Amino acid sequence: MEMKIALDTMWVLITAMLVFFMNLGFAMVEAGFARMKNCVNILSKNFIVFAVSSLGFLFVGWGLMFGDGSPFVGLKGLFFASGLDNSPAVGEAYKGVYSSIAWTGVPLWTKFFFQLVFCGTAATIVSGAVAERIKYKSFIVFSFIMTMFIYPVVGHWIWGGGWLALKGMFDFAGSSVVHSVGGWAALAGVLMLGPRFGKYNNGNINPIPGHNLSIATLGTFVLWFGWFGFNPGSTMAADPVAIGHIAMTTNTAAAAAIMSSTALSWVLLGKPDLGMTLNGCLAGLVAITAPCAFVSIPSSIIIGLIAGILVVLAVIMFDRLKIDDPVGALSVHLVNGVFGTLCVGLFAQDKITGVATGSGLFYGGGMKLFMSQLTGVISVAAYTFIISLAAWAIIKATMGIRVSLQEEIEGLDIGEHGNSAYPEFLGRKPAYSFLGIKGNE
Amino acid sequence: MEMKIALDTMWVLITAMLVFFMNLGFAMVEAGFARMKNCVNILSKNFIVFAVSSLGFLFVGWGLMFGDGSPFVGLKGLFFASGLDNSPAVGEAYKGVYSSIAWTGVPLWTKFFFQLVFCGTAATIVSGAVAERIKYKSFIVFSFIMTMFIYPVVGHWIWGGGWLALKGMFDFAGSSVVHSVGGWAALAGVLMLGPRFGKYNNGNINPIPGHNLSIATLGTFVLWFGWFGFNPGSTMAADPVAIGHIAMTTNTAAAAAIMSSTALSWVLLGKPDLGMTLNGCLAGLVAITAPCAFVSIPSSIIIGLIAGILVVLAVIMFDRLKIDDPVGALSVHLVNGVFGTLCVGLFAQDKITGVATGSGLFYGGGMKLFMSQLTGVISVAAYTFIISLAAWAIIKATMGIRVSLQEEIEGLDIGEHGNSAYPEFLGRKPAYSFLGIKGNE
Amino acid sequence: MEMKIALDTMWVLITAMLVFFMNLGFAMVEAGFARMKNCVNILSKNFIVFAVSSLGFLFVGWGLMFGDGSPFVGLKGLFFASGLDNSPAVGEAYKGVYSSIAWTGVPLWTKFFFQLVFCGTAATIVSGAVAERIKYKSFIVFSFIMTMFIYPVVGHWIWGGGWLALKGMFDFAGSSVVHSVGGWAALAGVLMLGPRFGKYNNGNINPIPGHNLSIATLGTFVLWFGWFGFNPGSTMAADPVAIGHIAMTTNTAAAAAIMSSTALSWVLLGKPDLGMTLNGCLAGLVAITAPCAFVSIPSSIIIGLIAGILVVLAVIMFDRLKIDDPVGALSVHLVNGVFGTLCVGLFAQDKITGVATGSGLFYGGGMKLFMSQLTGVISVAAYTFIISLAAWAIIKATMGIRVSLQEEIEGLDIGEHGNSAYPEFLGRKPAYSFLGIKGNE
Repeated sequence: MEMKIALDTMWVLITAMLVFFMNLGFAMVEAGFARMKNCVNILSKNFIVFAVSSLGFLFVGWGLMFGDGSPFVGLKGLFFASGLDNSPAVGEAYKGVYSSIAWTGVPLWTKFFFQLVFCGTAATIVSGAVAERIKYKSFIVFSFIMTMFIYPVVGHWIWGGGWLALKGMFDFAGSSVVHSVGGWAALAGVLMLGPRFGKYNNGNINPIPGHNLSIATLGTFVLWFGWFGFNPGSTMAADPVAIGHIAMTTNTAAAAAIMSSTALSWVLLGKPDLGMTLNGCLAGLVAITAPCAFVSIPSSIIIGLIAGILVVLAVIMFDRLKIDDPVGALSVHLVNGVFGTLCVGLFAQDKITGVATGSGLFYGGGMKLFMSQLTGVISVAAYTFIISLAAWAIIKATMGIRVSLQEEIEGLDIGEHGNSAYPEFLGRKPAYSFLGIKGNE
Repeated sequence: MEMKIALDTMWVLITAMLVFFMNLGFAMVEAGFARMKNCVNILSKNFIVFAVSSLGFLFVGWGLMFGDGSPFVGLKGLFFASGLDNSPAVGEAYKGVYSSIAWTGVPLWTKFFFQLVFCGTAATIVSGAVAERIKYKSFIVFSFIMTMFIYPVVGHWIWGGGWLALKGMFDFAGSSVVHSVGGWAALAGVLMLGPRFGKYNNGNINPIPGHNLSIATLGTFVLWFGWFGFNPGSTMAADPVAIGHIAMTTNTAAAAAIMSSTALSWVLLGKPDLGMTLNGCLAGLVAITAPCAFVSIPSSIIIGLIAGILVVLAVIMFDRLKIDDPVGALSVHLVNGVFGTLCVGLFAQDKITGVATGSGLFYGGGMKLFMSQLTGVISVAAYTFIISLAAWAIIKATMGIRVSLQEEIEGLDIGEHGNSAYPEFLGRKPAYSFLGIKGNE
Repeated sequence: MEMKIALDTMWVLITAMLVFFMNLGFAMVEAGFARMKNCVNILSKNFIVFAVSSLGFLFVGWGLMFGDGSPFVGLKGLFFASGLDNSPAVGEAYKGVYSSIAWTGVPLWTKFFFQLVFCGTAATIVSGAVAERIKYKSFIVFSFIMTMFIYPVVGHWIWGGGWLALKGMFDFAGSSVVHSVGGWAALAGVLMLGPRFGKYNNGNINPIPGHNLSIATLGTFVLWFGWFGFNPGSTMAADPVAIGHIAMTTNTAAAAAIMSSTALSWVLLGKPDLGMTLNGCLAGLVAITAPCAFVSIPSSIIIGLIAGILVVLAVIMFDRLKIDDPVGALSVHLVNGVFGTLCVGLFAQDKITGVATGSGLFYGGGMKLFMSQLTGVISVAAYTFIISLAAWAIIKATMGIRVSLQEEIEGLDIGEHGNSAYPEFLGRKPAYSFLGIKGNE
């Protein structure tokens, strides 16, 4: 028994470290897809956001998410994860206020750390979508709200024994809990901010290429790597059959999505765009996150293929809607977070890795599971989008959310941080004579 | 028993993740050693190649490699790893069609995932050598052939219970199976492609420096890190004495090779060239890969020292032979893959970590083991080189393998992908007036 | 029992790999904070230093550190870790010459490898502080001295059963053993070298911004990630309660330090400087390294908050003292290494993760523990600083330590290595007409 606790703790901690490492992946993807003049700002946001999450989730997020209480929110042991707890005791033997996570036999702080890195992922997703125009201070404030009040509530519903869990909704590693929540919060921010200067004018969609595809690719590899912590780690136990199976579905979905997004961009754009390949990979990973433990390897191929197509179409769609998302975060996390959650209702095979999900529509389970998933998708969307919109609106009204036009054009690095990411490199800078800004082209 | 399965599965999965992460290492080393104008192309190749491997090895590679059948190729359970299998049962208890890998007591998909990341490594090695002139599409097609038909056959011979295994050849973690196979396939490609424009003219060898040594160094560190999965993980069991020993021989060989390659480049070139230091590290790692479990720490120092010297001399030799390998992949993987395989025959000490290899020439075992190793080297070379040459020739005849001269000069990033890796940075571009290309120098 | 050995070995090896990976972190942080023209030099130093450590610690470092002998230095089994040893036997069952590390039940080479990566960290810390003016050769020689004679002696005192351990000093993961030793050795080097040309003139302090904040941020994330090996791994056993607790204190201290350093730089400099945020993170990590296993989560917040403030003030202070440390290594590793060591004497709570430290001043233990810590800090400082100064002085007298003024101005990349990190990128270069150097501004 003691050995099993040690083994499971090791698995949970190591996979948590991999998920932590995804912060680097997000930082590099988002910095790489943004412009040189806003690079320090994005790096700063993506760096500090995990510090904010670490504090916010400790202060109150954990308690709201896993504390015993109502089906809507945790009410016990709210602050500093300081409620009664005798982990690693499980099941009947568990005496404490975090019973919804007493199924995993690891000590409290290991549980906390694992859940923290998921909370941090939801928060960092927002950063990319609102990039290149948001005030640093406002982003920090929103991140506190996100990790203290928004993410933990949805988390309680689905992973904390709340009403969606009771309704039979399944989200193994967080297509909904993490990715769609990050995506809806980001969408609210993007709508509140408006598009970047010069992105859409006179009915044109002006592409704004990222400044460094080397680090964007690096970041995507890091995310892919980290996902082997995200999905297989969500067993929260070193269950040998499940973790190998999940590593496979995760990887195969990513591979299939890379192929389909690359192929589709080749067809639509005439050439295989690297950005689409990278976002295709992430789309496949997001989509497989909810169903990874419940579907077969062949199903993971199909899910991945569709995810890769969806992300390309979504990027095009958001641009047509003039919803300006510099890094494609909405197309990756929101669209595919929703899609992946629904996939459970379509592709799940009961007990494929031991979990009694019931089967999805394509495996003879009828509409039951799908409807639970759909209920989850809609309620998560409603809650997250509305409360995020309210939070952004309050921030806008009190401290402002958008930098000045002059600062946006000159770059947030100087304006917000007084830094330049690459001060010795000569770069292209267009002139904006109406603002008195000189360029070098 | 159950605990041992869980423990071994965890070890195999985590080390497999580290090997997966080597894809990032290769991408950054190769992109860093190439020119700015071809950066997106290399990143794209090194990114998609693991997706290709994931699908190709699943479709048919695994079955050909580990399926029961003949000494030359697997014949059972060929497609989708879907043959009968009751892993994690081992030895007598195993009932299935993948008996050659039934010595490790982990579930099927964990075995598969571990083997997949090795297959992916062999495929990604090719990318660097053929860089800066190959068509993206042709590389993708070759990668499918590589991971479906070339790598698995050699793998069957040595790791799948095939004729070389029966002959007493040993390749612990793949100096031959992975690195020399990657190297021979790359050599065939390089010969079929010819050198880059401007590399050799009027009898001169023109150095073409890499565009970003920061990411090249980053990549080498990542590879060194990943090798702690590659070699110690190849135990496929958390055998405490063996994995610590292997981590040590791996690291010590790398350290020695770094010192010798740096020293030799200092002597030969007058200054310690960073590229040589980095490739020295990789050379030491490749060379120790076959013998890591069979040799002592002092032997690993000697192997490393020689590997570091070999790689420097090989880089110079390939250039004299006008074999144009932009990143030194042949000198690292081919030359030291062969050297490392032979080292088993020289430095092995019977049962040093429990494996009954017999001893090598320097430890009283006579020529027996060395001759088995040599047989392996020669047959792997013959098969891989010839079939790769045939594959490249068919690709050349049907879809072409080389981009146009104009595209090569302007860069494959725009030509193949319509992207630029660093669109805002000002770079040096020489003019080519005969093609109507303007430079900025 | 056998299972426990396997489990602990796996934990120690995997965490050791994470610490190894910190070499990448240091390389990227230091390269990023330095100028473009010295980038290859820093990359080279930070790459070769782990090779040097691997050999130096094997040759003699390990034996001096862990060999039985006197309270001041190990005397048995000195060379090549070749003394008698029957690890993984522990306690009474252990028969060998490395008894001070016989408390951990893992095989010898696993112990060695884990300790090696710590030695390597101490050595690589020096690299950043002496950057942009030291001769490559001289750095290599000092690194051998450091890993063979300086680090192992202090290590023996504290971790090798030496006089400070006997006195009741505690340094869980090395705020003193690793970070302050690296810091004192670096300070000696900085004083012997003098400041960079142009850093201080006419009483001004001229900021010299780093050339690449993307890789500096990347490096800091990698270090944060690696620290989850550094601190939790220092249990050298998969003790489930301890490792989760330590992961938490480590992360929480980093988070708090990020917030306080960012806030203080915002107040003092008017804007939140990214460099301060990054160094704040590292400061928090260094400070929590000694006390991580002995303090509560709330204490780790306080320690982190103070560390973040200390690092900002120290950076300003060293500049006022004209002690030129290009990357802030002294402020991070020396100042916070000392601070963290003292924190054990202030915040420790007896047996918080099972270790009988006694309690610190703030938890009713009085001054006893604090005085032991202070004794440790002072004696480590005296020994390390004096012997390092002597070593640097000998190097200076024999082979020189500083490159010529002309080389320093033109950059060490060309001068020391004949390489350029980014040969195709156009960069800003000031002219130095008195040396005949042309710029482009």
